[in-house]
Amino acid sequence: MSEGERAEELIDLVHRNDLTGIRLWLAEHRPYEIADELVRMTSTEAIVPFRLLDKDRELEVFEELDPGQQQAVLLGLRDTAFHELLEEMEPDDRARLIGEAPAKIATRALAGLSPAERRMTAELLGYPEDSVGRYMTPETVVLHRDLTVGRALEVVRAKGAEAESIYTLPVVSDGRRLVGTVALSDLVVNDDSRLLKDIVDLFAPRVKAYEPVEDAARLMQEANLVSLPVVDSEDRFVGLLTFDDALEVIEAADTEDMARQSGAAPVGGHYASVGVLRLVGARVVWLMLLIVASTLTVNVMQAFESALDAVTALALFVPMLIGTGGNVGAQSATAIVRALAVGEVRLRDLPRVIWKEARVGLLLGVLLAALAMVIGTLLVGVDVALVVGLSVIAVCVWAAVIGSSMPLLARRVGVDPAVVSSPMVATLVDATGLLIYFSIASLVLGI
Amino acid sequence: MSEGERAEELIDLVHRNDLTGIRLWLAEHRPYEIADELVRMTSTEAIVPFRLLDKDRELEVFEELDPGQQQAVLLGLRDTAFHELLEEMEPDDRARLIGEAPAKIATRALAGLSPAERRMTAELLGYPEDSVGRYMTPETVVLHRDLTVGRALEVVRAKGAEAESIYTLPVVSDGRRLVGTVALSDLVVNDDSRLLKDIVDLFAPRVKAYEPVEDAARLMQEANLVSLPVVDSEDRFVGLLTFDDALEVIEAADTEDMARQSGAAPVGGHYASVGVLRLVGARVVWLMLLIVASTLTVNVMQAFESALDAVTALALFVPMLIGTGGNVGAQSATAIVRALAVGEVRLRDLPRVIWKEARVGLLLGVLLAALAMVIGTLLVGVDVALVVGLSVIAVCVWAAVIGSSMPLLARRVGVDPAVVSSPMVATLVDATGLLIYFSIASLVLGI
Repeated sequence: MSEGERAEELIDLVHRNDLTGIRLWLAEHRPYEIADELVRMTSTEAIVPFRLLDKDRELEVFEELDPGQQQAVLLGLRDTAFHELLEEMEPDDRARLIGEAPAKIATRALAGLSPAERRMTAELLGYPEDSVGRYMTPETVVLHRDLTVGRALEVVRAKGAEAESIYTLPVVSDGRRLVGTVALSDLVVNDDSRLLKDIVDLFAPRVKAYEPVEDAARLMQEANLVSLPVVDSEDRFVGLLTFDDALEVIEAADTEDMARQSGAAPVGGHYASVGVLRLVGARVVWLMLLIVASTLTVNVMQAFESALDAVTALALFVPMLIGTGGNVGAQSATAIVRALAVGEVRLRDLPRVIWKEARVGLLLGVLLAALAMVIGTLLVGVDVALVVGLSVIAVCVWAAVIGSSMPLLARRVGVDPAVVSSPMVATLVDATGLLIYFSIASLVLGI
Repeated sequence: MSEGERAEELIDLVHRNDLTGIRLWLAEHRPYEIADELVRMTSTEAIVPFRLLDKDRELEVFEELDPGQQQAVLLGLRDTAFHELLEEMEPDDRARLIGEAPAKIATRALAGLSPAERRMTAELLGYPEDSVGRYMTPETVVLHRDLTVGRALEVVRAKGAEAESIYTLPVVSDGRRLVGTVALSDLVVNDDSRLLKDIVDLFAPRVKAYEPVEDAARLMQEANLVSLPVVDSEDRFVGLLTFDDALEVIEAADTEDMARQSGAAPVGGHYASVGVLRLVGARVVWLMLLIVASTLTVNVMQAFESALDAVTALALFVPMLIGTGGNVGAQSATAIVRALAVGEVRLRDLPRVIWKEARVGLLLGVLLAALAMVIGTLLVGVDVALVVGLSVIAVCVWAAVIGSSMPLLARRVGVDPAVVSSPMVATLVDATGLLIYFSIASLVLGI
């Protein structure tokens, strides 16, 4: 995979506006490789190579772009090309695109669709954002449980649906009620005369269309499912969630969690295609709140100004102390947020988790305190070093408890635990850590 | 999905040692649900319900556990049960288990395997850790390109391999050289008399067995592949990487990246099954290094001790200033590390990325400085507030540049960008930020 070289080429060709070169490059690469390069360009840059794609691959590449770039590409197309592209998209991808597009694009898009396509898109649009319904594939082969294996294979053959939605086939009873699933491989391996109802997996997991798609994707991951049948509230089969959608959902969810962990809102697009203003917008809110919250540290420092005046050396260790507290808190918070996201920890584990993290914090505190005391003694003297050491122990325990309990408490009040970011924990630990530090200083140094 | 209730039951039953209750609970749940509960217990707790499982499901549950728990379970089994379980495992899972187990388990394991199983495991063990070879499934159906579709379906039927490895079938020429792949659905949909060489996808992506498995998994995600053929250095087919392994690899890689982002080493196991000492071990090294690095902040503060003595109010804003710098730097670093991991940014984008982040930092700095100056003026006065405001702008730009360039520089020298953790960036920005702060103070206040 010589990505470095490949990367150099296309973007340089675009910058030089070398149309022949771009055509040649496109002919030599596969759709996902092309999309891979396009997502690293700005929307304007991406339009040129996209327009030079042959019809067949246009759609495949288009579906790999993120919604922002898809919109930019659509805006750059003539009406016929615009509608051809849209009509050929998967209904689930189209619904997401239209759901997120500005009204200008959405109206133009819906107007040009054939009645059947419009109905399917509208149906998907009826489900809440980030629900299974928005991501499922509604056009799939459905088999009645009274069919034989041989007849079922004929149905599959006749429909000739796209590959990823026929790995797992939904088996229904009358009224489209979902009975279970059979794998395509079960059909191939079993005798033609067997009845589906005898080989159907009755306990195959299923999800409701209005449930969060991230939960469904994690379920597919845990249960190793290529696809997951989706039902409505009356258990009628309405579509399939396929593994490629699940992979996409999980990658996006992890990206969002990581952004939130650093105190930024998710930007919902590839890094290269997101502008400076949108990046600032995603990051500034939490930074502002944290600056306001850190006013507390100023208050604490002010309250102990006389102590600071008496022993100036105390001020020297403030960055080291609050830095360490912040780091320990961030580690705990990150570990717990992730464990919650992948289902390794649940709400009722709160007491056990806090107890575990408190012990981790204590042990870390003792080890770090020893190191801090050596540094403190060498730089300023044993008195202040003792204060720093004791404070490090207390702050580490406190930070580990705060960092581990806050994500769980967030989950309890129904907030995404990932909003408990490292900067939030650090800021909280800063102010309280200073209180601990100066209190210990008063006791030890008698000031 | 009433996970809360389910969770309460099994763990409580285990604590009460209610064997009948555990048997009943197990009978009512699917293997992945059972594994889901077991991973939340300590290894000792998990052994009891595991032993009560019926033979059929023992293996399925076992494969979902993490290596640490698998080892604990194995140690608790009699010799015959031990070998039965191992013999039935997938060769790739078995190789990973043995590769990671202490010698005591590994020897006992290899000794008990049938010659064929031992050969397959040893073969997989020959590949480096975290390589595709360790994760691939070697037992799959292989089709020669001169077969007809009808004959190919008979081969598939006769082999009756496990479901996930026959979604995509490798097509080879003489000497097992990989030609391309056909999907099982292609076989079902196409006419029985067609030749495989006419329907084979010649451009299907492939990977080499010694390549990193994370790259291969991300490729499967980008190209939406259910499975990916693996070849040796002479392009001979050696196995398939399946989507369930890819999902597992990606989830594990994201978990590791998140841990590293918070300055911790990955613990390689589910949170509940990892002990306090292993958590401390994973976290303490970076914390120690960061404490040593933060000695720099003490040095900077000492160097400007006279300025601090002259204007004590300067000390009050140290936590707020370095906190803000750390937060801005962490946001930039997190965004770039993630963009690198999913392939949205590459090494050659360095100048563009730094330029973008510098502008983001400047804009954030101006907005935050305004807020900080209001707070500063209210709390201590306009002079110090001006110093704080100017410093916030400079520190934000600096933090954004450091945070964005360090992960890219790490990649350049061949280090995983995820080691550029938020705490590391924050600590670096702390010391330099203080230098900036006191320099601006000297200029503005003339001290």
